[in-house]
Amino acid sequence: MILKDTIVALATASGVGAIAVIRLSGPEAIAIADACFQSIHKQKSLCNQKSHTLHLGHFLDGQRVIDQVLVSVFKNPHSYTGEDTIEISCHGSQYIQQEIIQILLQKGVRMADAGEFTLRAFINGKLDLSQAEAVADLISSDSEASHQIAMQQMRGGFSNEIQLLRDQLINFASLIELELDFAEEDVEFADRTEFKNLVAKIQLVLKRLIDSFAVGNVIKNGIPVAIVGEPNVGKSTLLNALLNEERAIVSEIAGTTRDTIEDEMIIDGVTYRFIDTAGIRETKDVVESIGIKKTFEKINQAQVVIYLFDAQKFKTQSSVLKLEISVIKNKYPQKQLIVIGNKADTISPEQTAYLKTEIPELITISAKEKSGIESLTNELTKMVNIGALNNNDTIVTNSRHYDALLKALREINKVDEAIINNVSSDLMAIDIRETLYYFGLITGEVTNDELLGNIFANFCIGK
Amino acid sequence: MILKDTIVALATASGVGAIAVIRLSGPEAIAIADACFQSIHKQKSLCNQKSHTLHLGHFLDGQRVIDQVLVSVFKNPHSYTGEDTIEISCHGSQYIQQEIIQILLQKGVRMADAGEFTLRAFINGKLDLSQAEAVADLISSDSEASHQIAMQQMRGGFSNEIQLLRDQLINFASLIELELDFAEEDVEFADRTEFKNLVAKIQLVLKRLIDSFAVGNVIKNGIPVAIVGEPNVGKSTLLNALLNEERAIVSEIAGTTRDTIEDEMIIDGVTYRFIDTAGIRETKDVVESIGIKKTFEKINQAQVVIYLFDAQKFKTQSSVLKLEISVIKNKYPQKQLIVIGNKADTISPEQTAYLKTEIPELITISAKEKSGIESLTNELTKMVNIGALNNNDTIVTNSRHYDALLKALREINKVDEAIINNVSSDLMAIDIRETLYYFGLITGEVTNDELLGNIFANFCIGK
Repeated sequence: MILKDTIVALATASGVGAIAVIRLSGPEAIAIADACFQSIHKQKSLCNQKSHTLHLGHFLDGQRVIDQVLVSVFKNPHSYTGEDTIEISCHGSQYIQQEIIQILLQKGVRMADAGEFTLRAFINGKLDLSQAEAVADLISSDSEASHQIAMQQMRGGFSNEIQLLRDQLINFASLIELELDFAEEDVEFADRTEFKNLVAKIQLVLKRLIDSFAVGNVIKNGIPVAIVGEPNVGKSTLLNALLNEERAIVSEIAGTTRDTIEDEMIIDGVTYRFIDTAGIRETKDVVESIGIKKTFEKINQAQVVIYLFDAQKFKTQSSVLKLEISVIKNKYPQKQLIVIGNKADTISPEQTAYLKTEIPELITISAKEKSGIESLTNELTKMVNIGALNNNDTIVTNSRHYDALLKALREINKVDEAIINNVSSDLMAIDIRETLYYFGLITGEVTNDELLGNIFANFCIGK
Repeated sequence: MILKDTIVALATASGVGAIAVIRLSGPEAIAIADACFQSIHKQKSLCNQKSHTLHLGHFLDGQRVIDQVLVSVFKNPHSYTGEDTIEISCHGSQYIQQEIIQILLQKGVRMADAGEFTLRAFINGKLDLSQAEAVADLISSDSEASHQIAMQQMRGGFSNEIQLLRDQLINFASLIELELDFAEEDVEFADRTEFKNLVAKIQLVLKRLIDSFAVGNVIKNGIPVAIVGEPNVGKSTLLNALLNEERAIVSEIAGTTRDTIEDEMIIDGVTYRFIDTAGIRETKDVVESIGIKKTFEKINQAQVVIYLFDAQKFKTQSSVLKLEISVIKNKYPQKQLIVIGNKADTISPEQTAYLKTEIPELITISAKEKSGIESLTNELTKMVNIGALNNNDTIVTNSRHYDALLKALREINKVDEAIINNVSSDLMAIDIRETLYYFGLITGEVTNDELLGNIFANFCIGK
């Protein structure tokens, strides 16, 4: 890990904007920026400026003016990275962005690797590892729920909890290891009852955190929803109707990415990924048709299954439909099922009432007329247990953390057994150290270049 | 024009980046930002902070933390717009960008119109109109040449020149209008010789500026180049070879837009637009074939014509090729013609030497082997007269300015004639006022809402 060099990267989104921000960090950041900077109002050196000040001037390549820029000065340790940092706010032309970066490269800085600014912040103790990981989650957050979890993690909610347990466990570990020095005298410095309480507390917290991953993961990656049903029951129309509703809500602000991922949408702050199930029915035999591998694969991937049928055809096909519904229910008792009768605008109120007596959980909609869509979205929201989000419980979203928590739980369970079986301190000490090791992996007390490389490679350049 | 409200917009490129910048300007900018801001280290109000300072804190929606942000404070008149301005640097998630803007909108700011920050800068006298227009050019500049011209214009090179002439002319206008008050006494307050000198100087400057538009326009919009020749002589391979060369040069920095405009490229800082001329030969008769309307249309649009032929086939087709070249030369004496023998790798050195005696201006290349491409790009660079760029002459790139300059020249020519013909002061005064009017249109002394609307509508939102 070399922190002696000064790094540069474009910090804002690539493309043309009104302005762009180029960030420099490292021991030479201020001196190098100063060598390219000429103040507009009076002669001044950036090196003599206070931290957290802004300076208007020209960015120069020798005599050639590249742009009028606004330079922010941040002095070590009062910056994001903890190093001297310069932010150059220039006009948002790609030509200008490139020129400024190239000129800085010629002056001896180098291009930052992905996530290197945050890596430096971690190495300089400005963030722990789980907070650093939350920065990447925060940047990629695209819904209220994923944003809230990332924000909580970045503010230390998760690491504080782990850190507290770790500190208490280290305390006991020292006492138990001290017992080893007095092995022949058979003393117990560590109060076994207190220790047992701590282990029980750790098990409880770990179990809760591990359980939270199920929610955290779907919030981060979206809740997979399969819409199943025969061809022409209106699956695409339903998707469009859902999409339209959402578009209307977000249309106040331009520039969302939603356009490119047509089957992903955010409802009440939670992301849903709709799994395309077009053309699932390929044979005439009912049980066989619903049983075709393709449909099951899709339902397997889903957490919520929407079963859609044509309300008009219920009369003639009611036994088939009811059979299909019960097949899904029996095969997937753990999946949440929503049954929807579409094309409700084409049937009479009496028919609707009859349908509801036949299938009590039924929701009737008209995807075409966009009526009843709200009942469906309410049902979706109700089904997703994000209650944990509302009170301030910590939620795990990161599979690396999940993995470390599982391993920490396995080790602490061994400690628990050791206490019960009155195992000798030296063997117990090993399991405690193992638990501490996995805690340390999460917060970054235990780390190595490969781990850091893997984590920060997922960052965008410039962060 | 209402400047009493406070406006907000995303200032950086849309999309996901490490950070994004949201800009607020207007009388309530600081107070509204302060209402959403909580300092991290100690309690402080943004309202009490000095201009050009940076503050780390949380952006809040009531109790909910939206993001950790860095806020820049600029106090009226020391900002881009000349108003109180706040820049909020947040994490580059689109969700966060949207949330912050929505919360600010709820607090009573409104979304800025396209170019409204620059419009306000103009109205508050921070920039004249031609400088404001240069800001948009600067942001869209994608080559060294177009950047240099926009930069010069933004720094006032162009308006200073016009302003100087305008001031001198106003001086004479006042004297001549004073003469009208003493019309019966037949006095001349304005020295006619001096005045004639000034008019001659104005004519000279206007002519030079008008002439510069030819260069300025192609630099801004790219130099149109038609590649003509029979099918299968290697036009596409040549384009790809040119494109590859360029890609290699720019590949050091990622994120250029060049990918999307395949037939536009920058060579030595100048943009070239290659006009697609695939399949121009449609009949067997030579003169007729080259004469087909399509080819002529393409050559008509071009400033440079590249005539490409297959060097292998020169022996058998030399008279045809020479005829085609002379047809182009005769029909388009004003176009710059580059004759290229492609597939030079397939002929012997003797054949190459023979070709060069037959067509002295010939450049031989192998587009496939990418040899000789540099001779071609050198020739292109030589042909484009951007000498004016090297000394510090002002270059006009804006067709609105060009139009106003043409009209100013027409009016000043009338003044010139009026002096020669000893026309009475009252008539001359009208022509002088007209000239001044057109000068004022350029710098913005003379303006109206429609004109401003047209100009700033072309800006991006956030600038």
